[in-house]
Parts: sequence; structure tokens; C-alpha cells
Amino acid sequence: MRLTAVEPRRDPRLIAVSDDPFNAETPLSQQVGVITPAPLHYVRSHFPIPRWDRLVVDGLVEHPLSLGIEDVLAMPSRSLVVTLECAGNGRQFLDPPVAGEQWGLGAVGTAEWTGVELRHIVGLARLDPRATEIVFAGADHGVAAGRRLAYERSLPVDEALDDDVLVAFGMNGEPLPADHGAPLRLVVPGSYGMASVKWVARIGAVDRPFRGHFQADRYIIDGKPLPPVAPRAVITSPADGAVVSGHIVVRGYCWSGGSPVARVELSSDGGRTWSDAEVQPPVSPYAWRRWSAEWSPRGPGDAVLVARAWTRDGGAQPMKQRATGHLGYMNNAAQPITVKVGAAT
Amino acid sequence: MRLTAVEPRRDPRLIAVSDDPFNAETPLSQQVGVITPAPLHYVRSHFPIPRWDRLVVDGLVEHPLSLGIEDVLAMPSRSLVVTLECAGNGRQFLDPPVAGEQWGLGAVGTAEWTGVELRHIVGLARLDPRATEIVFAGADHGVAAGRRLAYERSLPVDEALDDDVLVAFGMNGEPLPADHGAPLRLVVPGSYGMASVKWVARIGAVDRPFRGHFQADRYIIDGKPLPPVAPRAVITSPADGAVVSGHIVVRGYCWSGGSPVARVELSSDGGRTWSDAEVQPPVSPYAWRRWSAEWSPRGPGDAVLVARAWTRDGGAQPMKQRATGHLGYMNNAAQPITVKVGAAT
Repeated sequence: MRLTAVEPRRDPRLIAVSDDPFNAETPLSQQVGVITPAPLHYVRSHFPIPRWDRLVVDGLVEHPLSLGIEDVLAMPSRSLVVTLECAGNGRQFLDPPVAGEQWGLGAVGTAEWTGVELRHIVGLARLDPRATEIVFAGADHGVAAGRRLAYERSLPVDEALDDDVLVAFGMNGEPLPADHGAPLRLVVPGSYGMASVKWVARIGAVDRPFRGHFQADRYIIDGKPLPPVAPRAVITSPADGAVVSGHIVVRGYCWSGGSPVARVELSSDGGRTWSDAEVQPPVSPYAWRRWSAEWSPRGPGDAVLVARAWTRDGGAQPMKQRATGHLGYMNNAAQPITVKVGAAT
Repeated sequence: MRLTAVEPRRDPRLIAVSDDPFNAETPLSQQVGVITPAPLHYVRSHFPIPRWDRLVVDGLVEHPLSLGIEDVLAMPSRSLVVTLECAGNGRQFLDPPVAGEQWGLGAVGTAEWTGVELRHIVGLARLDPRATEIVFAGADHGVAAGRRLAYERSLPVDEALDDDVLVAFGMNGEPLPADHGAPLRLVVPGSYGMASVKWVARIGAVDRPFRGHFQADRYIIDGKPLPPVAPRAVITSPADGAVVSGHIVVRGYCWSGGSPVARVELSSDGGRTWSDAEVQPPVSPYAWRRWSAEWSPRGPGDAVLVARAWTRDGGAQPMKQRATGHLGYMNNAAQPITVKVGAAT
């Protein structure tokens, strides 16, 4: 296996939302199937891409470790197909607008991540029973909120030691690309992307709540950490503003980080009446699912299409924007599109 | 979605076994995780890459069809993660040697295939109840066995109409690459790769056994068609001839097209004694699975590592080569490797 970080390979179809650091969303209409090709996967970086080559495990552990990347690659590893979504996805649609990256609906993507279970690495370091949280520091750093900071996040010990939290080195069958955290990143299925710390260089156990900038001042709503990824269904075809006629297939993706999606409904009259879409079986429990519904538009005129996801525990994606805090996180409101119905062909 | 065929993108690490047509195997030691990147996926072609742009459905159907690629892309589609293996994989190890492409163990790979269920397309054409087989013709053609031929294969109607047989247009989130059948190919999970006809340009229903060259003269053992993919476990790390010491992880892949793999055993003494490896949960029912086993070699000296797969119905991968017909298909004998055990580090 190649050990070198893969340089950024960016598909020209990525939709950039900032250049330095590079942030970009996936044009979901260009996505075929479930796996998002790495060069087309949305990128969320707080600071420029760092260069680094060791992983330190310290804090409240009995045997602190300093691991080379090769040491991690030599450990038992697993692969999981996981959808990651930025907590700010959909911010562009907030009214009134909120500061922050103006993501449309494409700050989401799905990849096969390969890596070592975090609990395996923490197990080698022997966690002190007094530890309550584990702090993950990215090698990336810069100025934020007027201070020089690294990107740092924590997880409660019980969440961190979940079987499916990985220290990943592979993405879609290749070494991690630089934009996605090469050579090592955390992957925390079910959580918004901010938990999946990229370029993870230090894992430290602590016995009190971590209060770093990206934990306590960002990624919160009303002072509380964000819950698991909220349910969402998006329409990827037809496009907003498209002209449609005849008999067409409306398609999209749906996902949820907590209770799984149980069904997706589609309305072609702006939400007055609904019918069930067909939702494909999951490729993996953590991966988005494709849905589709056949539709025979009757025109001429405009039609407003809107999809919404329901979860197994009875939750529904809201039709109207709800409280997203002053930072505009977790706006999963159903997003209508308008198509022009032409004469049948 | 882009409709144009993606030109061949070949990873320089592919191991070519012939240049014209291009045939190449995947260096399995370079594969990270479950998904094989398209440019690293093994390629098996009988003829040069063709250019074509329509799919005809005819023969014993009530409504023959001539479909543009766009027509197929507009239909409901699904995604499946499927391992494909060439029936000649492992031929290189046969003793005495047999003519044909001298594949090592890398004529196998796993991709996410996205496409339309074949039964959907056949349903649109309304199959005549007298039809017993469906013949698939690739657009590729050339001279074989002294005649000008297209690549053609058939499936019995009941197998062809299985839910999971796809007319695929996507691979790993992108349009099919040219080497893998762009713009459309068949994907038949569980069967050896010859059934997954690339560049599929014609689907014809017939009422008698198809006897084309690639059906009746090739891909047979003792005159009979090949059964589902036989079980196999391969070792991908360490490499044959490597020097090992200390405590290492032995890893590889396992798969089976019929009864699923139930366990993988590893021997470090050439097959005298065995212990169970850890086999990862499947990403998909049709995908290979990763396995690993920790091992503390004792040296100095050579050690012979060999892995074998057992299926749920009690079948085992054979330790010794068995009958593979005069064309050397389906050689799934366990393949030992020898490593040099150095001093512990």
C-alpha cells in the first residue's frame, strides 16, 4: 500500500464555497449510485491542509503512544460505508440568512472508509478509568475567533469506544486524499461531519468536559452539542427549473443519523398531497439510500415537487424551517423545487 | 449526469496479462478496503473496446425496443456492491500449465454497480412465454476460433429475471469506464465474470439453447456451464517471500458466489494445523469480505502460510488442484505463500 498522502484531486464539477481553506459541495445531480467518488466528495476544512506523520495518544492513559502511520496501517482494520454530512448543509436556504459557509444541499457524501477501530488504539494505550472524554486534535491549525487554534473536538468515552468509530486511512479503496484528512482521520458514523476530525494527530483522554472553540463555541444549538444527523430526503432529478413532460422518474437520496429512514414521501403539489416513494435497501446501515418515484406530470404550468423523510421512530423532516441556532446548523427542512410541465412528448 | 463514455483510465499498478485486447489483473496487495477503484479493477476483454450507442431488445418479445442510452438512464435504477471474478483466475498456478490468459489471483475485484434491473427492461418489451433463454450480445467483436464473432452469452429466463441482474451504467459513483463496458453492461451477481456481458448492445429472447462460441466452446468444464463462483480466500499481506518478525496481522479477502463464506482458516505450517481468522461482516451480500488473523511467527526459518474458505453449506476450498477442464477454469485451490521469519524486532 502506498503510504504517501494523495494530493488533492478535485473534480472540476465540485461547487466551491470558499477557496482558502478550500470548501466545496458535491453537485448531487452528478452523483451516480451510492458511493461518492473521492474527487467529487464535499470538502469541509477549517484550516489549510497540514503535513504531519505521527499519531500521539496521551492524557489519561497508562501507556502513552507515539505511532508512525505505518504502525497504524499494520493494525487490524475494517471498512464501513458511511454518509457524512456537514452540520451547515442547507444553510443557504435559511431566511433570514445566517453567517457561515453558504452550503446548498450538497455538503453531504458517502464513501467507504477503511481504518482501525479507535477502541483498538485506545485499548493499546490503556485508558485510565477516570477518563470521561477523548479529545481529538487535527494537525491543521490557523487563526479563528482571534486566536491561533488547532481543529479540536471531543467525544464522550462511551461514544468514542463504539465499535464503528474508525481511525481511517482509506477512502473508496485508496489512501485518504489530502482534502479528506490524509494520512489519518476520524470517522464517527451518525454524527455530523465536525466529529470526524481530519488529519487526526493527537488523541488525548481527559477527565472533564472539553471546552475548545470548535466544541463549545461552534457546532452548538442553544449551547448544546448537535444531536445525530437529522433525517433528510433530497431531490436530485429533475433539477429545479427543469422542463418535464411525459412519464418521468423523480429521484434522490435520503439519510438519517439517528432512527433510520422508514419511508420517503413525494408531493407534486407543494405539499398538499403525498405519495410514497420507493426507497432502496441500504447498502450499509450508515449509508444514504436512493429513492425514486414515477410521476406523470399534467400541464401546462408549474409543479412544485417536495420530498420528505420519515424515520422508524415516527419523526418527520419538517416542512418549515425550525430553530437552527444563531449559527444555522441542522436545517433539514424539506426543500421544494419548481419544474415547468411541458406538453407530453 | 455525463452520458459520454469515460475513456480508459488505467492505474499504472495494474498487472497487464495482454495488451490487445487489454487484459489486466489487480495487484491485490494494493487494494485498500472493499471497493476496488475503477482504474485498479481487473479488466477482461475478448475484443477491442467498441463504440456504440443503442440497446436493442428483440427476439421472442411482443414489443421490440430500440433504446437510446438516455432512455435507459431515465429508468428506475438500483445500486449493488458486487464482486466479479474471472473464471480463469488462478490459472497461472495450474500444473501442468493450461493455455489461456495466465491470471494470478488478481482477476477479481469489487465495485458498486448502478443500473436498471434487467427484468424491468425485458418487462417493457413483454417477453413471449415461449422464451427459455435470453441472449446478450456485446458490441465488441473480432476474430475468435477462426471466425468473426461478437461476444455473446445467454442466461436461462429465470436467472435473467432475478431482481439483482442489472443493466449497469455506473461504477463506483461514476459512469462506466470504457474498459468496463461503457455505456452499458450486464452485471450478474454470483456468476463468474463472463456472464456480465460488457458493452451490451442487444438483448434477444430465444426458445432454444444458445450455442454461441463463448457459451458452448468456452467457459465450460466437461461440456457443462460453470457453476456459481467457487469459494476462495486469498492472502494479500504479507507478500510471498516477505521477511516477517514480531507480531503481525495476516490479511486477505474471501468470497463465494453460491453458499456464503462461513469462516476462513489460516495455517502457518503449510496446512497441518489451522486456526480461525476473523472475517468482517459483509458490506453487501455479493461483496467479498476482508479477513485477518494476528500471528506471532517463530523463527528463524521459513513459514508456509495458507488460507482456505469454508461455506455455510459445509463446502471447503480444496487444498489441492482439482479438475478444471482443458481450459483451466475455476481453479480455487488454496494458494500457499512462503515467508521468511526474521529475528523479533
